[in-house]
Amino acid sequence: MKIKLLGELGLIERIKNKVKPYQKGVVRGIGDDAAVLEYDKNNYLLFTTDSLVEGVHFSVKYSKPWQIGMKAIEQNVSDIAAMGGLPKYAAVSLALPNNIDVKFIDGLYRGINKKCKKYGISVVGGNITRSKKISVSVAMTGIAEKKYLALRSGAKKGDLIFCSGDVGKSAAGLGLLKHNKKGKSAKKHLEPSSRLELAGKLVKIGVNSMIDVSDGVASEARHICNESNVGAVIYADKIPISKNTIIDAKKLNKNALDFALYGGEDFELVFTAGKNKISRLKKLDVSAIGKIVGREQGVKLAMGNKKTELKMGFEHFQNKK
Amino acid sequence: MKIKLLGELGLIERIKNKVKPYQKGVVRGIGDDAAVLEYDKNNYLLFTTDSLVEGVHFSVKYSKPWQIGMKAIEQNVSDIAAMGGLPKYAAVSLALPNNIDVKFIDGLYRGINKKCKKYGISVVGGNITRSKKISVSVAMTGIAEKKYLALRSGAKKGDLIFCSGDVGKSAAGLGLLKHNKKGKSAKKHLEPSSRLELAGKLVKIGVNSMIDVSDGVASEARHICNESNVGAVIYADKIPISKNTIIDAKKLNKNALDFALYGGEDFELVFTAGKNKISRLKKLDVSAIGKIVGREQGVKLAMGNKKTELKMGFEHFQNKK
Repeated sequence: MKIKLLGELGLIERIKNKVKPYQKGVVRGIGDDAAVLEYDKNNYLLFTTDSLVEGVHFSVKYSKPWQIGMKAIEQNVSDIAAMGGLPKYAAVSLALPNNIDVKFIDGLYRGINKKCKKYGISVVGGNITRSKKISVSVAMTGIAEKKYLALRSGAKKGDLIFCSGDVGKSAAGLGLLKHNKKGKSAKKHLEPSSRLELAGKLVKIGVNSMIDVSDGVASEARHICNESNVGAVIYADKIPISKNTIIDAKKLNKNALDFALYGGEDFELVFTAGKNKISRLKKLDVSAIGKIVGREQGVKLAMGNKKTELKMGFEHFQNKK
Repeated sequence: MKIKLLGELGLIERIKNKVKPYQKGVVRGIGDDAAVLEYDKNNYLLFTTDSLVEGVHFSVKYSKPWQIGMKAIEQNVSDIAAMGGLPKYAAVSLALPNNIDVKFIDGLYRGINKKCKKYGISVVGGNITRSKKISVSVAMTGIAEKKYLALRSGAKKGDLIFCSGDVGKSAAGLGLLKHNKKGKSAKKHLEPSSRLELAGKLVKIGVNSMIDVSDGVASEARHICNESNVGAVIYADKIPISKNTIIDAKKLNKNALDFALYGGEDFELVFTAGKNKISRLKKLDVSAIGKIVGREQGVKLAMGNKKTELKMGFEHFQNKK
C-alpha cells in the first residue's frame, strides 16, 4: 500500500503504534505538539521538531531566505506555545544544493536570529548536508511549568472551544502568491507569528486542552476530540476570519471559510476551557467558536441550521496544497 | 559566492559566528558533537541532530529500510557517545515521496526500534512531510555526568591520540556497493555501530578530548586540534585498518589508508589522553595513532620519515563521495 492511501494521520497512527517506551520519564510522546519529558520538581522538558521543505512549504520564487528562517523558528515556537511552555534551545538541520549562494545562508540566519532574539532562544547545534532541494529542520527544546502544561487530551464535555486571532490568512496568502496576485494575506503566509505570549496568559487562566493551528481549524478540532475522547460542534459563523482574508479569498474565487478550516500554517491557537473562564478570556484576542459534546455526537460543523461532519484539514500525501 | 567554494567547514564557521546566545545555560553550543546545556547539579543535557538524505548518505538500491533506520539512530548515538553521555530521547523527522510503500515505513521503524531498544532510547516525537527524496533527520537528547563530559577542546600538548576499533571500513563498503562488488566492508557501511559502551569506559578512565569518526580520521584530528588550539602528528602505520578493509580497497584499486583518513561514517572514536592512562587504555579496543604537539607544528601525517600536512576529510559541497 502506498502511503498516499494511508495519509499523514494514518501514517502517524501507524508509527505511534510501532515506537516503544525504552526510556522512562516520557509524560507524553507522539501525538501532541511537543513531547513532554520529566525534568525537575516543577518543570517538564518539551521537545519538538518541524521542517520546511522547498516545493512543499515554501518556494524560493516568493519566500526570501530570512522569511524562511523566521518561519522555521516560528512553527516550532508555536508547538512549544501550544503546550503552555517557553522555548529555550534549537538545533538547525540544513539540506542545501551546493550551487546555492552564501547570501542565502546569511539571509536565513538573519531570520533565525531575529526570532531567536524575540523569544530568547539559543541555536546550539545542527548539521548541514547536500541535497537537491532546500530543507530547514528545526528541533527545539523548551520548559513548561507542570501546573501550566496544556495537552490536546484534556477537553471536557461542556467546554467551550476557542480560537485565537484570525485564521485562514496563511492559506489565502499562499493562494495569492501561487497565482501572482497581491493582497495583505501574502505577508501572513510568508511571515507568520506564533502566539507564545498569549499562550502563556491562557494557561494561567486555565485551559483544558490546546493545540496550534498548523493544518487548519478542522484538523485541530479533530485532534483535540480524538485525544480527549469527546465530540465537538464548531459554528462556522463564529470562526474568526479577517476582512483581508475574505477580500483575498474572493480574488481567488475561493471561500475564506475553507481556508480557515482546511488551510493551516496560521500558528494561532485552538483551545478549550470551562464556561467559568469566559469573563477572563473575553479580554484577550480569542473567539469562542464551538463547544465540546459527547464522543457519540461526532465532530460537526454547524452552518445555519445544518450540521455536517467536519472534514480533516491539510494532509501531506493526500492533498495537494 | 556559492557555498561549494566556502565548503562545509567554512559554512559551519560562518553560521557559528552568526548565532547569538539569547538563552542562558549553554555550556557548549555549535562546534562539538552535541550541544551541552545546564541540566541539574550533576548532569548536563546533550542535544544533537543528524540527517540521512537519499542520494547523499544512502541509496535505496543497496540500503534496506531497516538499515536506514538503524543508521539514523546510530549516527546520533555516536554523537552522544563522543561527549561521554547516554542517549535518552529521539524525535524523528521524515521527508517522504508520496508514492513510497508503507512497507518502507514499517522497515524503517523496525530498524529504529531495534537500536532504540539496544540503547534504551524512546522516540517521543517527530514530523512527516512530503518530498521528492527520502530524508530521515533524528534529533536526540542525552545526559552526561558533569565529571565525565568529553569535549573536542580539551587536548593537551603531550597527549597521545587514540582511535577505537578500525577505520576506513564504511568508505570501503560504500565503494563496493557503488561498483556492485562484494566484500565484508559492505555491511560495515550499511550497518555501522557506534561505540557507546566503549565511550563510557573511556571517560571513566579519563580522556582529555574526544570526537566520533563521521568524516574520517583526518577531519576529526583537525577538529580536535582546532578546538584545543594544539597541533598533532598522526602516524599512518598506526591507524587501525582491518584486513577486510585492505582487501576490499584493493578490489576498488584504492588505498585503504585514504578511506581511513578521508572516508568517514565509521562511528569509531578518536580521543586524546595523557600518557599515564596508557596501561588502562591498552586493555580496551583502542590504538595509539599519534600525539598532540604545539599549535605551531601544524597537523601532520607521518609516513616513514616523511611528514605531510594532513588534508581534511569528507566534506559536503566540495567533495563527491
